[in-house]
Formats: sequence, structure tokens, C-alpha cells
Amino acid sequence: MKTLSTLSLKWSPAEFLLLDQTLLPKKEVWIKIENLDQMVEAIKSLRVRGAPLIGVSACLYLAHQALRGQDLKSLEKDAQALKAARPTAVNLMNNVDQLLKHFSSTTDLIAEAIRIFDEDQTLCDGMSTLGAELIKDGDNILTHCNTGSLATVGSGTALGAIKKAYQQGKKIHVYVDETRPLLQGARLTAWELAKERIPFTLITDSMAAFLMKQGKVSKTFVGCDRIAKNGDFANKIGTYSVAALCHLHKIPFYVVGPRTTVDPKCPNGEAIPIEERISSEVTGFHSSKESVSWAPEGTKVYNPSFDVTPSEFVTAWVLDHKIITHKNLGDLC
Amino acid sequence: MKTLSTLSLKWSPAEFLLLDQTLLPKKEVWIKIENLDQMVEAIKSLRVRGAPLIGVSACLYLAHQALRGQDLKSLEKDAQALKAARPTAVNLMNNVDQLLKHFSSTTDLIAEAIRIFDEDQTLCDGMSTLGAELIKDGDNILTHCNTGSLATVGSGTALGAIKKAYQQGKKIHVYVDETRPLLQGARLTAWELAKERIPFTLITDSMAAFLMKQGKVSKTFVGCDRIAKNGDFANKIGTYSVAALCHLHKIPFYVVGPRTTVDPKCPNGEAIPIEERISSEVTGFHSSKESVSWAPEGTKVYNPSFDVTPSEFVTAWVLDHKIITHKNLGDLC
Repeated sequence: MKTLSTLSLKWSPAEFLLLDQTLLPKKEVWIKIENLDQMVEAIKSLRVRGAPLIGVSACLYLAHQALRGQDLKSLEKDAQALKAARPTAVNLMNNVDQLLKHFSSTTDLIAEAIRIFDEDQTLCDGMSTLGAELIKDGDNILTHCNTGSLATVGSGTALGAIKKAYQQGKKIHVYVDETRPLLQGARLTAWELAKERIPFTLITDSMAAFLMKQGKVSKTFVGCDRIAKNGDFANKIGTYSVAALCHLHKIPFYVVGPRTTVDPKCPNGEAIPIEERISSEVTGFHSSKESVSWAPEGTKVYNPSFDVTPSEFVTAWVLDHKIITHKNLGDLC
Repeated sequence: MKTLSTLSLKWSPAEFLLLDQTLLPKKEVWIKIENLDQMVEAIKSLRVRGAPLIGVSACLYLAHQALRGQDLKSLEKDAQALKAARPTAVNLMNNVDQLLKHFSSTTDLIAEAIRIFDEDQTLCDGMSTLGAELIKDGDNILTHCNTGSLATVGSGTALGAIKKAYQQGKKIHVYVDETRPLLQGARLTAWELAKERIPFTLITDSMAAFLMKQGKVSKTFVGCDRIAKNGDFANKIGTYSVAALCHLHKIPFYVVGPRTTVDPKCPNGEAIPIEERISSEVTGFHSSKESVSWAPEGTKVYNPSFDVTPSEFVTAWVLDHKIITHKNLGDLC
């Protein structure tokens, strides 16, 4: 039996482990996932996060449970519960639906889960290669949230393209939005870029515009959680702000995602459900080791986890197999 | 001898106290200021902050030292040191320069410092009244940083106008940018609005654009640290982002500041020095009681404390005595 190992998960017949991303960059703690509650909790509390990684992890969880002898009927019920764990990203639904076509036998199910894992790595390679073509020597690239090997089981989406360009010897520098409220930029992207020794500078989300005004941002690369048929897309909260500011400053804005992130059943951004999360994410900073609240008690908060960027603000959609622009937008799906 | 007392300072012949704003909203700790080092430290570490409040506090410090018998020659030296404590806001330089014209006697100096204090309250009343005229029943107002009674010795600048409109019985709601990195919105504006029972919702800075897109922001009010002759102005980092986004979304954007914030010697925004601060402000959250770092150790940071918004993104400049628009921009100074 194949064993699978990436920056963010380990899977073998013996155990299924996920890197607890809420503890990064301070601690690299692996959590053993042994039942549905643990898997749903890991998704909801963002121990495992990133649209592609969530989808692949859910499939590998089901395959692992099948290996441990859980019957297919009850696994099918668990599959439905997993699909509902996070509403915005479409990869989770897509991957689990794909897996459900292979519930005829345990062997088939496991083989399909492994194929989905392999596919994500191939998709990442495709996006990274195509995305890197858009990056030039000397570029200062702005990115938001984390879209690398902590968000996928491969090299990543937007960050995959950036890493690929660097590996190709291009002299680049990355501006990393800290990405409030959950600080995926400051915690995760900074950690990944430091590991790869790629030069970067951390900024608060509110500084990006001022950098653009000073001519310090050559182009922007972000990932996505769902792309609608018309090119609108949902991504981490703050992405719309970056896109609008790039539009105003005439800075190329690239969205990177596998073709599995395109939802042909979704006509436009209005149809994408936006998850809202608890207020404590905004009123302070909380990890399992540290907890700080800075706003007055009882403060009312608006905390959408994602926002929707309209097609018009996108320069190009970098998929795994092709780059889509407004000229061939009809080829998106 | 007059005693002076506001939300953020207490001044009497016996003592000069400043509210330590770095500890808000959790603790209301008053610090006794007895020498130049303490006063400079209080400014640099933002225990006292807000362009108008810094200027008035510096003058009251000098007056208090004069009362305690420090000779005028050495106070003049201290005045120069105070002027250099924070480079961006012009009020500090303006107020201290104004005070320096009254160093002929201790009595004159003290009288002038008290006059500067009284003047700030009058200026706040003027701005609040004029600004409130721009606010209508039902408005959802976005604001950035803190510009109320914690930033002045009166009702405030932008927040003064918002509070005035509420006192006039207008049904308004305020969206408060948390204002990373130092969270003056989440800590201070939330605290002030809660005290006044004005309805508000706290957001991360990156959410403002998404609210605008949804049509949820009627207008934006911000303060300023220096207004150049052409209308460009410096304010807390993130202000440029808000202004650019308002411009793109065709949302009125108002800057509120006393006429003393206009620097006629400064031709445009390019000429305003921008203070950069330490990286730990961005890599974590630190107060005297709590300290959390979330970015990997050694992370490189860009941390300008202010940014510059060009005149073209401003709908109107609300001064204490008149509202300036692009039509009468020549009347700014």
C-alpha cells in the first residue's frame, strides 16, 4: 500500500496525520485523525485549510477509515457530513462527490482517493509552471493568504507559481499580506517562504495600497476557493480589496486555481455562499497556547471568511492546463 | 490656577497625568509625567497619541515644568527635543513653535499653553459641528484609526463629527477599521463609541472594500496628521487604502482636521516625512501585560506608521471654520 507524505499531511494504512496549521509557525504538531468528529473539527477550526488541501484530506480520511474497516454505507453518510464542513470552497464538494462515484468497493474507494491526491500534485505542477511564465526577473509580487504546500498536497497554487519562478533562477521579491483575521500570511506564507529562502517582506493588509501607489508592486498572485462560470471568484477575505486596488493602480492581478475550483453550476459571484465566522477571530488573537483580546468586551463584529472578486478585476485566471484571459473567458469551463 | 481634565489628560499645578492609551481598553492607567524623558517616551511609544493631543500635551508638559521651576532656557531646549519626537504630524511642531513665542516669562508661557488647550477644544467643536452637517439619518459611516477624545483634548476630529451627528439624534451606524498594526480602531475607537453608546461594528481593515462593494458604506470620515498646501494629507497607515477604495466605489471621503493641521510650507504629499516603526508591531501584538508574536522569527517587515493620500481622492476637507472642496481648494491655507 502506498504511503503519502507532504508538508501538511501523512497517510499510511497505519495512520492518518494532519499538520495542525493553527500552531504554525511556532510548533509543528501532527494530529492523528481517527474519527469523523476529529476530521470535521480539523476543517472547521482551520487545523487543515486551503481549498485543495481540505478536499484531498477529506478523501484521504474516508479512504483511511475504509482501510480500518468502516463499512461503505456509514462512510457515505460521513462523506455528506464532510461536504458541509466548510461552505465556500468548491474543491471539498467536488472531490468528495468524485470519490462517491467509487464507493462500489473499499479497494476502488482507496484507489480513487490516492488518484485524487496524485491529481492535486499534478494540478499544482501545471499551475506553477504556467503561473511562473507570467513572472519576470526583478518582479515584486504581492500575495494574500497562504496558497502553497500548506494549502495543497503539491507545490501550491499562487505560491506554487512564485516558488517555481524562484527555482527557475528569477530574482524576485514577495510582499506578504499578513491576512487578518487569521494571519495565514504572517504565520504560514512567511514560514513557507523562509523555508524556501525566497526574499519576502511582511506587511499589514492596509499597507498594500500604499506600496502600489509607490510603484513597488509589479503584479499580484492569489489563490481561490471557487470560480464562477463568469470568472467571478471567492477567496480569503481581503482578496477583493487587493483586486480593486490593483485595478485602480493598473497592476496585473492573477488568480491561480486548478480546473477543479471552477464551478460550472455557479453562474456568478452572487451565487457563492460566504461563510461568516466567530467574532473572537477579529477581537483578538487565539491559538491553543496563546490568547489575547484587544477590543472591548461585547464588541459587535462582522467576520466574513471570504469575499467575492468580480471577473472585471482579474487580468488572467491561471488554471493547471491553460491561462484564461478575458479574450477566451468562455473556455473557463 | 486653572486645572484641566479630559478623557486623556489631567493637568494641575500639582501634577500632569496622561492616560496610557497602550493599555486601553483593558486598563485605565494614568501615568505621571515629571521629566523630558518620560514625556518623549510617552509620545514615541504612543501612550499619548493623536496629532492634536500630542501637540497640546507637549505644550502642557512644558507649562507644567515651568510651574515646577525649570528655567526657561533649559525648557527651550526641551521644546526642541519634543518637536522631534514624532516627525509626521505637524500639530506637534506648530503648537510648540507657537508656545515658543511666549517664552518671555513663566506666566506668559503657562497662559499660552492653556490657551492652546482651550483652542483645541474650540477647534474640535467647530469641526464636529461642520462635519455633522455632512452626516444624514441612516448613514453607515466608515472610520479608520482613532480620532475622538483620545486623539484631542476635545470631542475629536472625524469621530467628533460622528459623535455630534449622533447627539443630534441622527440614526447612524459606524464601521470601525481595526487599524493594524497598532489596533487603534479595535482598542480605542471601539472603546469611545461603546462609552457613547453609538452603534458600531468592528471589522479588519481588509473587509472595508467588501462592505463598499455591497453598498454598505455611505461615507467615510478620517482624521489627518498633516495637510499639504495642495490638499494631499498624511494620516495613519491604511488611510490611503480606504481613500483609494472610496474613490473607486464613488463613496464620499471626508478628511477632518483643525486649520493647525494644514502646513502651508509643505507643497504636497511628497514633502511629508513618513515615520517607519519597529517590526515587532507587525509580527505580533504587544502591550505591557501581553505579548504575542505570530510571524516566524527574523521576518523582515515594512512598517510605515503613516501614508499619504492625494488630494484627488478627497471629497472635502472639514476644517474647524469651514469646509473646503475642490472648488475652493485655494482657501485651504
